[in-house]
Amino acid sequence: MSESLRIVPLGGLGEFGMNLMVYRWGAESLVVDAGMMFPGEEHLGVDVVIPDLSCLESCGTLHGVVLTHGHEDHVGALPYVLREIGMPPVIYGGMLTVGMVRSKLDEHKLGDAPLQDIAAGEVVKAGPFEIETIHLSHSIPDARGVLLTTELGTMLMTGDYKFDQTPVDGRPADISRLAEVGRDGLLLLCGDSTNADRPGIAPSESSVGPALLETFASCEGRIVVTSFASNIHRVQQVIDAAVELDRRVALVGRSMRKNFNIASNLGIANAPSGLFIQPREIESFPDEKVVVVSTGSQGEPLSALRRMANNDHRDVELHSGDTVVFSATPVPGNERAVNETIDRIHEIGASVVTAKDAPIHASGHGWQEELKLMLNLTKPRFVMPVHGDHQRLRLHASLAHAVGIDPENVFQGRNGLPLEVDANGARFGEDIHAGVIFVDGVNVGEPDDVALRDRREISADGIFIVVATISSEDGAIVADPEVLFRGVAFLEEADALVEDLKDTIEDSLEDAAAAGTRELHLIQEDLHDAVAGLVYEKLRRRPMIIPVVVEV
Amino acid sequence: MSESLRIVPLGGLGEFGMNLMVYRWGAESLVVDAGMMFPGEEHLGVDVVIPDLSCLESCGTLHGVVLTHGHEDHVGALPYVLREIGMPPVIYGGMLTVGMVRSKLDEHKLGDAPLQDIAAGEVVKAGPFEIETIHLSHSIPDARGVLLTTELGTMLMTGDYKFDQTPVDGRPADISRLAEVGRDGLLLLCGDSTNADRPGIAPSESSVGPALLETFASCEGRIVVTSFASNIHRVQQVIDAAVELDRRVALVGRSMRKNFNIASNLGIANAPSGLFIQPREIESFPDEKVVVVSTGSQGEPLSALRRMANNDHRDVELHSGDTVVFSATPVPGNERAVNETIDRIHEIGASVVTAKDAPIHASGHGWQEELKLMLNLTKPRFVMPVHGDHQRLRLHASLAHAVGIDPENVFQGRNGLPLEVDANGARFGEDIHAGVIFVDGVNVGEPDDVALRDRREISADGIFIVVATISSEDGAIVADPEVLFRGVAFLEEADALVEDLKDTIEDSLEDAAAAGTRELHLIQEDLHDAVAGLVYEKLRRRPMIIPVVVEV
Repeated sequence: MSESLRIVPLGGLGEFGMNLMVYRWGAESLVVDAGMMFPGEEHLGVDVVIPDLSCLESCGTLHGVVLTHGHEDHVGALPYVLREIGMPPVIYGGMLTVGMVRSKLDEHKLGDAPLQDIAAGEVVKAGPFEIETIHLSHSIPDARGVLLTTELGTMLMTGDYKFDQTPVDGRPADISRLAEVGRDGLLLLCGDSTNADRPGIAPSESSVGPALLETFASCEGRIVVTSFASNIHRVQQVIDAAVELDRRVALVGRSMRKNFNIASNLGIANAPSGLFIQPREIESFPDEKVVVVSTGSQGEPLSALRRMANNDHRDVELHSGDTVVFSATPVPGNERAVNETIDRIHEIGASVVTAKDAPIHASGHGWQEELKLMLNLTKPRFVMPVHGDHQRLRLHASLAHAVGIDPENVFQGRNGLPLEVDANGARFGEDIHAGVIFVDGVNVGEPDDVALRDRREISADGIFIVVATISSEDGAIVADPEVLFRGVAFLEEADALVEDLKDTIEDSLEDAAAAGTRELHLIQEDLHDAVAGLVYEKLRRRPMIIPVVVEV
Repeated sequence: MSESLRIVPLGGLGEFGMNLMVYRWGAESLVVDAGMMFPGEEHLGVDVVIPDLSCLESCGTLHGVVLTHGHEDHVGALPYVLREIGMPPVIYGGMLTVGMVRSKLDEHKLGDAPLQDIAAGEVVKAGPFEIETIHLSHSIPDARGVLLTTELGTMLMTGDYKFDQTPVDGRPADISRLAEVGRDGLLLLCGDSTNADRPGIAPSESSVGPALLETFASCEGRIVVTSFASNIHRVQQVIDAAVELDRRVALVGRSMRKNFNIASNLGIANAPSGLFIQPREIESFPDEKVVVVSTGSQGEPLSALRRMANNDHRDVELHSGDTVVFSATPVPGNERAVNETIDRIHEIGASVVTAKDAPIHASGHGWQEELKLMLNLTKPRFVMPVHGDHQRLRLHASLAHAVGIDPENVFQGRNGLPLEVDANGARFGEDIHAGVIFVDGVNVGEPDDVALRDRREISADGIFIVVATISSEDGAIVADPEVLFRGVAFLEEADALVEDLKDTIEDSLEDAAAAGTRELHLIQEDLHDAVAGLVYEKLRRRPMIIPVVVEV
């Protein structure tokens, strides 16, 4: 046991999001990334989805957490991990990652978390693990691959990456170090699969700047650009284009302002003094002199751009002549929200430019040729694709076959299925059935939350509440029954139904009294069935029925 | 008034779906199409969305309904129209349209509807309107444009169309008649805008057959094909390919079987005898000898394919070696459901082929060159684009400008905005603010349904029900208060909260009694606020609170 590695993916293998990997050596463990995912619309009232953390409790001593970069799908579950599992001795990340996570943890009143900036190439020890990070490119600065070494060998978790040869900050991925890792012998590669379906090479982030400039130059009125707030180099390129065209810039949306501030304080972003104007000043500047940089590229309901599209933003009223530039593409699942936002803007009469119209977006995830390059550089003995739905994991596995890795050494995993590696080889272990956890407000809930089931039932057909008051002596009715309902369609009919229901309730109670039934739960059950029957007969719907019988 | 036309779009201008146009001449009117739309996920519990029909009641004498083709977004609201507005004297459509609609109306117990098959080119009178239909191509047989003539001139509502030069049934769109209409002078063109954003010409439906055959030929195991059940020519081509490869065919899913039967009885589709096998026989045939044709191309939750992907179909258990062929693309808004279905299939280990991998789908809506061809053929004086979101309507309008139609004569409309045409020209009239109606079970509701608001509130944070029993004499508490909740997350904490809430309830009731408050609604209001306050303090959530005070 102590001579074997156990790599347990708790999230990110089967979905885009909630990336979290546990690397275990005997009774000691290390976590790489702790990401969250936004819920689907079927998860009524749920704010955030994170991996089920219960297995972490049995994963022995946790020596630390390493964060590859600052995106929510890699760091968003950290507050919940810290609260559920307790503080690890150390949390490592790049400079910007640490800056963004610190701000996030402060909001969660976890300001005492042991965050520590680690330079690429620096080697630190955490229990039996030697940790080194490797500089890579992604759609946020300071993205790192994580190299973990134990007695058995070295593993590389790439995090999200691309091989951008002309990144905006002039610092391409450290190919040289990756090649060295390959020469020294890599035991296991866990690589990003997000774009495993795209042939070729992702365009460089720096190709976006000239396209933005060209797009802006053809706009006569106001320009509103939306992109991910964490894509600092993108925002920087928007700013540069605005400066070139002599327009002032307003950052709109909380995360846009916050991330730019953090990056700016770290020297990662910069703007000439006097460039920025406040959101409330936008309407008082001439249209052709303004670029608004806004959150909302994913059509998020409360985002600044969605509000503008709904004519509901405090500072910006969109109008004909404005151009809204989407310097982003919809994350899978967000297509509908994004399309709705775009069509609202068209309805207002403003123009829209998307990545379909001009090359104003570049993905932060490498395409097929880049995944193959990573495989060929690092020459891993074993491969387990991560970060993707089942389709992408499978495609990434076939890329590994294509570059000559023995299919027996390529493991197409899933969440909760541990990969066990020892001196004899690698194989899948026993499935621990990792689930997901719904975060609702400040609390963390169970996967098959009964609350969610109730919400679904009520949200389909509504709820009837029936209150009956009977004598504790003989079960006789001592007050008129009350019938209330909420979320029931077609109130007129429902109103008329209430009188019928009261008769039914009285009949049911009288029957129970006559039969000598005195157990409250039996009376309530009868009441439930009588009411449900009549409601279905009249409305052809099955709302939730809640009977309350009070004895006085 | 009597010398002017009023064209009122009630749906389809600003969305894909619920197409319904009212053509009015003085106090007499005609309806073309009556479509529905599937609800967004925010419309909790709503089954179907249809246009608000209230304006139809003030639209004078309804002389008839003309249906362009049998798709749900053109005929799906018909049962509700008939029930709300009453039976019109006649409902016209092509042979297949009438066949499909008759089956639908039978299910709604509206079998006495005056459906009438009208041949393309046949001219009939309905009040002041002369009606003729023109044969066009679409992704369902028997698609027609509708020509309406009044004293003032002729209008053409295209319905959905493409100019397929090699349709599967060998009957291309009647370009000759369209040209004649153009020569005679067309007053108004209302044209399909669905693909106004796609440059070029849509591929022919008959190009799909060879691609399906090639795809099937490379499959070694079982083949499951999904497409729209109403796309009879597509299903025919799947059948032809199966025959060619000596495979048997099973039609799976209610609408797949129903539509094929209707088309087959009308001679529009055919299969060699002995080709079909029953769904329950599928598992007993060798994999390489079967093609399953299934509903579910849009990832619909209860469809046959979605059930297969979830390992939950009675007759088909997907496994590695199976190939699922998506001979359809996601309708905007369905991307997430389709992607989820595809990834489930990958998780099972079966293969997936989509229209991205091979040319196995062709849109039924013409692309830009076809829309321009329609404009040039019919030479309309006025143009109002229909069938599309605001973006497509706008693009269609610019195509009209591009072919030389005076921009002043091109009207970019929206639902509820009537276009008024008389001898002096055309202009928008007063907005009647057309809304939508949610259909929930068998009933038809109001646009801003309070039930929907309640459902949203409850589905976000759940519901607390508080029952207090007090003396009618002095307001004293006569039974322990009851606290129930449903859909509230984190039951453990909620359970602990109940005791605290009971104390709060008793305090509130005692305060009311001491203050001499005897009005039930005031006592309930106080109770509501006290409970809501404590719940928020403890859970940081705002569930719905329903206080019930019973006097005995």
